[in-house]
Amino acid sequence: MDTQPLYRRLANRYLDAIKAGSLARGDKMPSVRELMRLHDVSLTTALQLCRHLENEGWLEARPRSGYFVRHPRRLPLAPTREPNPALPLDPAAFVGIQARVSHFVAQGQRYPIQCNLSGARGAPSLYPHAQLNLIASRLLRKHRQLLVSAGTHSGNMALKVALARRAVASGMTLAPTDILVTHGCIEALNLALRAVTKPGDTIAVESPTFYGLLQVLESLGLRALEIPTSPQTGLSIDALELAIRSHDSIKAVVVVPHLQNPLGSIMPDAHKQRLVELCMQQGIPLIEDDTYTALTNSDIPLLALKHWDKTGNVIHCASLHKTLAPGMRLGWIAAGRWHDQVEMLKYAQSRHNEEWSQLTAAEFMNSAAYDRHLRRLRHTLRAQREQMAEAVAQYFPAGTRLVVPEGGLMLWVELPEPISGSRLFEDALQAGILIAPGTLFSNLIRFETYIRLNCGLPFTTEVEHTIRRLGKLAENHLPR
Amino acid sequence: MDTQPLYRRLANRYLDAIKAGSLARGDKMPSVRELMRLHDVSLTTALQLCRHLENEGWLEARPRSGYFVRHPRRLPLAPTREPNPALPLDPAAFVGIQARVSHFVAQGQRYPIQCNLSGARGAPSLYPHAQLNLIASRLLRKHRQLLVSAGTHSGNMALKVALARRAVASGMTLAPTDILVTHGCIEALNLALRAVTKPGDTIAVESPTFYGLLQVLESLGLRALEIPTSPQTGLSIDALELAIRSHDSIKAVVVVPHLQNPLGSIMPDAHKQRLVELCMQQGIPLIEDDTYTALTNSDIPLLALKHWDKTGNVIHCASLHKTLAPGMRLGWIAAGRWHDQVEMLKYAQSRHNEEWSQLTAAEFMNSAAYDRHLRRLRHTLRAQREQMAEAVAQYFPAGTRLVVPEGGLMLWVELPEPISGSRLFEDALQAGILIAPGTLFSNLIRFETYIRLNCGLPFTTEVEHTIRRLGKLAENHLPR
Repeated sequence: MDTQPLYRRLANRYLDAIKAGSLARGDKMPSVRELMRLHDVSLTTALQLCRHLENEGWLEARPRSGYFVRHPRRLPLAPTREPNPALPLDPAAFVGIQARVSHFVAQGQRYPIQCNLSGARGAPSLYPHAQLNLIASRLLRKHRQLLVSAGTHSGNMALKVALARRAVASGMTLAPTDILVTHGCIEALNLALRAVTKPGDTIAVESPTFYGLLQVLESLGLRALEIPTSPQTGLSIDALELAIRSHDSIKAVVVVPHLQNPLGSIMPDAHKQRLVELCMQQGIPLIEDDTYTALTNSDIPLLALKHWDKTGNVIHCASLHKTLAPGMRLGWIAAGRWHDQVEMLKYAQSRHNEEWSQLTAAEFMNSAAYDRHLRRLRHTLRAQREQMAEAVAQYFPAGTRLVVPEGGLMLWVELPEPISGSRLFEDALQAGILIAPGTLFSNLIRFETYIRLNCGLPFTTEVEHTIRRLGKLAENHLPR
Repeated sequence: MDTQPLYRRLANRYLDAIKAGSLARGDKMPSVRELMRLHDVSLTTALQLCRHLENEGWLEARPRSGYFVRHPRRLPLAPTREPNPALPLDPAAFVGIQARVSHFVAQGQRYPIQCNLSGARGAPSLYPHAQLNLIASRLLRKHRQLLVSAGTHSGNMALKVALARRAVASGMTLAPTDILVTHGCIEALNLALRAVTKPGDTIAVESPTFYGLLQVLESLGLRALEIPTSPQTGLSIDALELAIRSHDSIKAVVVVPHLQNPLGSIMPDAHKQRLVELCMQQGIPLIEDDTYTALTNSDIPLLALKHWDKTGNVIHCASLHKTLAPGMRLGWIAAGRWHDQVEMLKYAQSRHNEEWSQLTAAEFMNSAAYDRHLRRLRHTLRAQREQMAEAVAQYFPAGTRLVVPEGGLMLWVELPEPISGSRLFEDALQAGILIAPGTLFSNLIRFETYIRLNCGLPFTTEVEHTIRRLGKLAENHLPR
């Protein structure tokens, strides 16, 4: 029998909830009255419960508002360093990101992986499978010939209406007919680049950027000009301006303004506005990858680059892959003045998407369940990111640097020199752990001391052990 | 009350079945003994039934085999003319098939269309929607996280196993890992061409060929070298050989060996073998588009070009779009020695297909229901093609030429000069009829007097009226 006093036993339940992330930093605790009713306890017990957790550093009292969950520990980590703006720019032609990714994939297949932290993806449990299954099965009963009828080439109208409606919150005014549905955001980026460039052209991208984009550039015969990018505020507009002045041949700019991959940076509105105006003035098409925006901590949507677009110079690419359903390949593109060309390219490249998944997504997006799902997803991811960051702070060698992003699925970790992310990747593999080495995120040799960790998995004891193991492996690289 | 003798009443029922296509040319009638048992009639009545239909020209007796359905009328049409092998070859660069197709699409949208005969697609009723819906719903119940789990990049293994198994019948020995699943055959063709060519290269194609392929070439900056192609035996290997000798820069050959679109031609085995060997000797990659093969009249599968491939020089592209489910975007590619490169390009272009549809297709393909479906589909399409051809023979101006293909979804109709397919297209539009003018099937001005008609729709009275209307409109073009 539990001999702890009642308030302690209840406090432990709330502590578990905080540790599991179902109560996250900033969340309001139930009020003292609610606690009394919920647990059928006296005022004294409810107050003792709250004060105990406050004393332990888990809650903070705010005058006239009640108790809120506070972060129990401050991360003893310095933020990732800002890029050196004086870095010379170098358009890296076809320098073999494909070869590097192939090596990475092949290595990953050589060892049995127990814990995969290399991706930028959420665990299936984060997504509303029960509701989606229900809608999908119902649709098959209602539209019996859905699987045997060819779809609409530019995308299902119901989905385009749902997307256009949602775009309003990001400050975009789009007609459903401005939108084309694609096989994921990666196809949208392909189409955007094919519409505005030709092989040999130079494209400005963030540095670091996700290897998926570098692969697209390489596969289309394009050169990447890597622009210094802040782990906090994203692409350096100053550096881009300089690059445009010194390289008069930049044919497009590709940017992930929100929760950039791998940095997690978010561009301030003023930067976004300046970027849109700069590209417009210079006549350079601006391609926006908006994959992660819905995963920010705040329920208040961030403004898309396209919000400031007055001339159709911004091509907006996005996806439901990370926010709604990783098993449905639904992306979309609003291609501005390249709409007709992108439509033709999409038709010639892969025809239409499947109606079935489009209708399923549309129906879910039009329900209140979608907002509820997003709130829950943001909440869970925030807890997972913070738990992962705390584990890194606890287990990684002193001098490790980290910014906990305000959303998204990943952490970008800077290791103290001379620890090498590539060597850590190789050592981790032999321990059954897969991580993404920093060298995958650039064509240049700039991110040797970095790794990217996936925070999309529930922060289980196994994940915590994995982080501890990684920390030990990293320490082995330090001189003794 | 019906006063006709019993044998006549029964004969009418069989006649209806023949007219509806459920008994098609070449089908065996039930034997006399079976007729006696089926209809509970005397030997005399059963014999009278058969002899009556024989006298009317619907059945033919074969010694010791019984009665078979024969075609009641011979088409009073000469076959489409063979191409002139002396035609000068001309690599047509970016000559604007996209613009022509855009015009075609835009025109089609200007008028309310009552009858659309412009496509190469089957009516939804031709496909097994009930069985697919059942499998799909069951899969969602069994694999509850299917919609929220990311798929495998090279394609679902169950589907690849099913495809590899089926490929055996076409004479191909493929491991499941030799196969990559794509978003339809059109994506497979894109990937194949991207793997073996670069912009500016010249590609040999059939002439005429489907505008989808010409669009792919134009969108990739490739030039089409159109090789004369027989309406009966497909690509002229002599002409291709000549072209290779006079243009030393042919970087790939794209061929639809079976039921070529729009011709419906089938290459004889000897031609296929010679083509594979020629391309191998010349070091020219050979891309095979196998979209329609399962739609041939015969249940005996035709041998794929890849059957003769000993060096991995043949890239086999195919699709389930026309044979299993037009609503599921499932294509595949066996890219021979370009496998790794195509896999990387597919990953960079659109990532993986949705697992849901892949698993649904795999389960259906592994059941006996798939073969039953294909037999029924072949049977129905044969009837529809023949009915359409008869209507053309009956209603189109004298001098119209036509080969009824041994399978597939379309008829390629040659109109007597000076009737213009483009003008007929415009006139038909105003009558609410959409057809595909021959000029869409070439970058050259060679097929002005042709049109393509879709036979994928049930041959209803409405379709018959439409053909009659088209015939009248065509006649208006003749000098009086």
